Amino acid sequence: MTRTLQDLNVTFIREALAHGADQELVVLLQEQHPADLAEAIEPLTEEEKRRVFQLLNPEQAADVLVELNDLSREEILEETSAARLAEIAEEMESDEAADLLATLSEATQAEVLRRMGREEMKDLAELLRYREDSAGGIMKRELLAVRGDSTVAEAVAAFQQLSHTEDVEDIHNVFVVDAERHLVGVLPIRRLLLVDAATPIHRVMDPNILKVRTDVDQEEVARLFKKYDLLSIPVVDEGDRLVGRITVEDIVDVITEESGEDLLRMGGVDEDDRIFCLPSRSVRKRLPWLTINLATAMLAASVVAIFQDTISQMVTLAVFMPIVAGMGGNAGTQTLTLITRGIAMGELSLTNARRALIKESIVALANGVAIGVFMGLGTYLWKGDWILGSVLGLALIVNMLVAGVVGTIIPVLLKRFGVDPAVASGIIVTTFTDCFGFFFFLGLASLALRFYNL
Amino acid sequence: MTRTLQDLNVTFIREALAHGADQELVVLLQEQHPADLAEAIEPLTEEEKRRVFQLLNPEQAADVLVELNDLSREEILEETSAARLAEIAEEMESDEAADLLATLSEATQAEVLRRMGREEMKDLAELLRYREDSAGGIMKRELLAVRGDSTVAEAVAAFQQLSHTEDVEDIHNVFVVDAERHLVGVLPIRRLLLVDAATPIHRVMDPNILKVRTDVDQEEVARLFKKYDLLSIPVVDEGDRLVGRITVEDIVDVITEESGEDLLRMGGVDEDDRIFCLPSRSVRKRLPWLTINLATAMLAASVVAIFQDTISQMVTLAVFMPIVAGMGGNAGTQTLTLITRGIAMGELSLTNARRALIKESIVALANGVAIGVFMGLGTYLWKGDWILGSVLGLALIVNMLVAGVVGTIIPVLLKRFGVDPAVASGIIVTTFTDCFGFFFFLGLASLALRFYNL
Repeated sequence: MTRTLQDLNVTFIREALAHGADQELVVLLQEQHPADLAEAIEPLTEEEKRRVFQLLNPEQAADVLVELNDLSREEILEETSAARLAEIAEEMESDEAADLLATLSEATQAEVLRRMGREEMKDLAELLRYREDSAGGIMKRELLAVRGDSTVAEAVAAFQQLSHTEDVEDIHNVFVVDAERHLVGVLPIRRLLLVDAATPIHRVMDPNILKVRTDVDQEEVARLFKKYDLLSIPVVDEGDRLVGRITVEDIVDVITEESGEDLLRMGGVDEDDRIFCLPSRSVRKRLPWLTINLATAMLAASVVAIFQDTISQMVTLAVFMPIVAGMGGNAGTQTLTLITRGIAMGELSLTNARRALIKESIVALANGVAIGVFMGLGTYLWKGDWILGSVLGLALIVNMLVAGVVGTIIPVLLKRFGVDPAVASGIIVTTFTDCFGFFFFLGLASLALRFYNL
Repeated sequence: MTRTLQDLNVTFIREALAHGADQELVVLLQEQHPADLAEAIEPLTEEEKRRVFQLLNPEQAADVLVELNDLSREEILEETSAARLAEIAEEMESDEAADLLATLSEATQAEVLRRMGREEMKDLAELLRYREDSAGGIMKRELLAVRGDSTVAEAVAAFQQLSHTEDVEDIHNVFVVDAERHLVGVLPIRRLLLVDAATPIHRVMDPNILKVRTDVDQEEVARLFKKYDLLSIPVVDEGDRLVGRITVEDIVDVITEESGEDLLRMGGVDEDDRIFCLPSRSVRKRLPWLTINLATAMLAASVVAIFQDTISQMVTLAVFMPIVAGMGGNAGTQTLTLITRGIAMGELSLTNARRALIKESIVALANGVAIGVFMGLGTYLWKGDWILGSVLGLALIVNMLVAGVVGTIIPVLLKRFGVDPAVASGIIVTTFTDCFGFFFFLGLASLALRFYNL
């Protein structure tokens, strides 16, 4: 199904390296798609990766580097000389070269820039000014721009000329500009095939231009691509002059990255915390979050502390504590996940939040009654104590209802106040269900002990 | 920044509807991009949505329907006649029309099909055969195919002809086929601008074809788009004949959808559980998962039950139970999220899992020591009991270390045995940290009580 060549695999590469069969390997490597090559390299050891990488010509090396995951890229780049880095960067598109340079130390970066062609150096220095996750940070400088009074034939000629110096594989649009490089229109390349060669461009271009400024966040750019089904978008500077473009190929990566970040945030992990980064960095990223968790756990513990006397009268209560708190937490997480996702997808807003709240309350109550009655009955049959069974069952029902309500309200409120619901919703909701669950269960048990002599 | 017209907003639409100013509304609606129109419609009531929808011509209605979220689409379609549905479906691309038809009852579906043109009906009936999340289910039938012996000029003519009958906005490639409609090559449309008109297509096409069969899962298709930076991919049937194509615009939606599914799965929610579906459906989807959670919570409770005597001798232990279990759970979730994400991104495999395990163990130990020493000291200062402080601190350190180890191993093992780590990892890891946390904390306390008379 894919065009992966069957004979390229880790074992083959390893053997070729071990036998010094470099020439045969070079030939085989040249036939591969860079993405397949990257995939074949990933499982190798650090040393082997570097040796294979050295066999690649600068163009191949550039293509493969872009495809490798962060870890492998770092491993390889550590040992690559500034001279070779400059050669490789010249073969890359400007946005990729800028990403590459951004990972290097400032001294190496300066040295690589110095060794590059004047034109490329200027483009790169320009791109390196922008935040990594802004439109400026993900755009590329290479593009096709013509004046509005050019003819279709002239635009085609400009495209043909560009194809001699650049790789035009991802050129989707012709941008139309005035003398000050302000955008005045846009036109898909394929349109050039559909109109007469003598037509002036301004007659066939679309004057409704969707564009972004360099400082727009990449998530917002991705949203525009999704919403308007774009293939590329022009990027303009503060003076509204065309400075670059972003293509759908890059946006596919942004979407993958951003959705992964939501997942990580919900799990209490910082996006800069990587599987193979230094342990000290992971500790620095995770310990603050765990400390917040500790504070909320102590809050739950202090609720239990209120009822120490009750527990000492009836130790079985301690046994059931994890069930009440745990089920509330799980039910709350379900609601919360659904609501957070709905907010991210634009299906939920303040206007229909009430409807969601009613629905989630009904679901929570139904699930609570099912679980509560089952556990209550079970406890009665097991311990023969109908009061304990009732207390446990009732506590489960109420706590799961609270979980549904709080799980809906918290993410909506956070969003309302401009906080990303993926970050803090989980901890707030489970703190609620823990504290409330303990309070209601142990409180009810205290009352029962006093009045029924449980 | 976007081309949203300032004057289209909910208030304006509401007032226009209330005052019966339908004509003005029709004019205003016509100027909108369908995506903006959909956005403006979303916050309206069900009744208002239907009234606005009735003002749209079939082409606009088709474009807007595609952009609306599931909920609004269902609300509108409920009241739309089969005759109008047929008109709208004819204006849609085949894949969108098939999606529309798939949401209707079988009777309505048949009636709509009967009212459609013969050609469209055949295409649709064909598409409806495929699983919704397969390549066949997301492909469209409209495409540009030429024979290898055609010239570039003939291919351009074929493209021009196609543009008269179809919307060619998303035609990215020319597919080259033989007499049996087997794919023999592919060529980006823009290449037609770069080569001489008399050149035979087979001389300029790329014979390395990346294609998928109709039954390939959409997630695998998305992976190919990401890996090879594709704009479109041809789809072939069992006989290897060209039957359709999938474009990057559709894949952007697939990626968004699939990454959302991962998030939902990690939160214990089924992807068919929607914010505004019937409560009974949500209960049916969530209760089984909560029942599994109940079983694991009872496992944790039974560990506590072993130590009832110990708790009765020292009730303070019950107060600290939530802290030990909770911190283990949180630390485990952090590791787990990172590892699951790493597996999904292809950064982690069986070969480098050992390295991840070592790193996560170091991080877990460091975080555990920080939290354990802090809580241990705090407890000693607060309760004046150094043995209780030591027991709590040690239990925290060990449980957080276990969390790191288990959080790494479980998702890797699940993946190894072909299970999606996003689904079950969370519950297994928290069950481990709960049971182990209680066992270690209460067990250590029992020993301390026996030997030190705590």
